[in-house]
Amino acid sequence: MNKSIILASASPRRKQLLAQIDFSFEVVPSQVDEDFSIRLNPPDFVEHYAKAKALDVAQDYPDQFVVGADTVVVFDGNILGKPKDREDSFRMLSNLSGNTHSVYTGVSIQCLSKKINDTFHCKTNVTFNTLSDHDITYYIDTYKPFDKAGSYGIQDWFSVCVHGIDGCFYNVMGFPLSQFYQHFTSHQNK
Amino acid sequence: MNKSIILASASPRRKQLLAQIDFSFEVVPSQVDEDFSIRLNPPDFVEHYAKAKALDVAQDYPDQFVVGADTVVVFDGNILGKPKDREDSFRMLSNLSGNTHSVYTGVSIQCLSKKINDTFHCKTNVTFNTLSDHDITYYIDTYKPFDKAGSYGIQDWFSVCVHGIDGCFYNVMGFPLSQFYQHFTSHQNK
Repeated sequence: MNKSIILASASPRRKQLLAQIDFSFEVVPSQVDEDFSIRLNPPDFVEHYAKAKALDVAQDYPDQFVVGADTVVVFDGNILGKPKDREDSFRMLSNLSGNTHSVYTGVSIQCLSKKINDTFHCKTNVTFNTLSDHDITYYIDTYKPFDKAGSYGIQDWFSVCVHGIDGCFYNVMGFPLSQFYQHFTSHQNK
Repeated sequence: MNKSIILASASPRRKQLLAQIDFSFEVVPSQVDEDFSIRLNPPDFVEHYAKAKALDVAQDYPDQFVVGADTVVVFDGNILGKPKDREDSFRMLSNLSGNTHSVYTGVSIQCLSKKINDTFHCKTNVTFNTLSDHDITYYIDTYKPFDKAGSYGIQDWFSVCVHGIDGCFYNVMGFPLSQFYQHFTSHQNK
C-alpha cells in the first residue's frame, strides 16, 4: 500500500499520529482559517473546513493524496476552537469541568487526478472530572494549551482531568486514525 | 505535592504514563507472577495482583509510596494475559476481532509507615473493527506484541484496528491515570 500523503495541517499531534500508523508524509499547511461566525452545525462545520484545507493544498499537488482535518469542541450548543488568550482558556476549562462535551474532527482526502473526493467526520464524547481553579491554573501556566481546540490536550498532564471518553481517542487528539485508515485504504486500488 | 514514588512494574508504558503526569519515580519490579488458574473474577484478580506486587516491593521501602498494577483483557468470560507465543497472539486477536472486550487494570498504592493501603480497579470497554488475517499477521510480525495483555497496544499501529472505547484510554495502556491521580492526591495530607 502507498502510505505517502501530503498533510495539509501544521498540527504536531497530527504528524505524530500519522507516524504512529507508519505513514510517510510531507507537511504543507493550508492557508485556510476557520470563521466561527459561519452558521453550520458541528459535523458540517468540521467537514467544510477539512475539505477547504485539503482542496487549498491539493491544487498544487493534483497527483497526490492530500489530507485536511479540522477539530472543534462542542459544549452546550457552542462550537469552541482554540482559546484567544489565557482568560479564554480559563473560561473554557471552567465550563467543561464536571461535564461531558463532544469533540468533532472532520477529515478530507483529496486526489484531484484520480477524482477522489472523500470527506467525513468523527465524534467522541469526553467527560471531565470536576476541576479545581488550582488545577486549571496549573495546567494553563505549565502547558499553555493555546493551540488546542477546547484548550486541552488529552495526551499530556491533562489526562488526569479526564474521567473517560466514548468513541475514538485519537479523534480527541485531532485525527481519527481508525476511521481515516479505513477510508484511505478503500481508495488504494482506484 | 510530593510526586515521587516507587513503581513496582517493569512496564515501559507505565513509566511513560507516570512521566506524562509529571511524576518522578524509581522502578523496582516485583517478583510476583500472575497465576491464571486462580479462581477470581476480573476485578478481584487485578486488585489481588496489583496489591501483591506493591506489597512485595513495599517491604523494602516502608517509608515510600509504592505503586503496583496489573492489567488483563476479558472476553467471553475468559481472562487473557500476555500471549504465550505467535500462535496464541493470532488466536487472541482473531477472537477479539469485530467484538467488544473489557480491559481491567488493578492499581495498589502502599505506604507501610503511613498505613496507606489503597487498592482499586478501572474497567474500559474496547471495540475492535473486523480484522483481516493479513492485518493480524502484519501486526504480530511487525510489532511483536508478546509483552501486552490481549496481544495489542492501543498506542501503536494497532490504533487503526480499534473502532472506539468507552472509559479511560490510559487504563487500556495499562495504567488509569485519572483514577490513580485522584486516589494518590487523597493520601497526600496524611
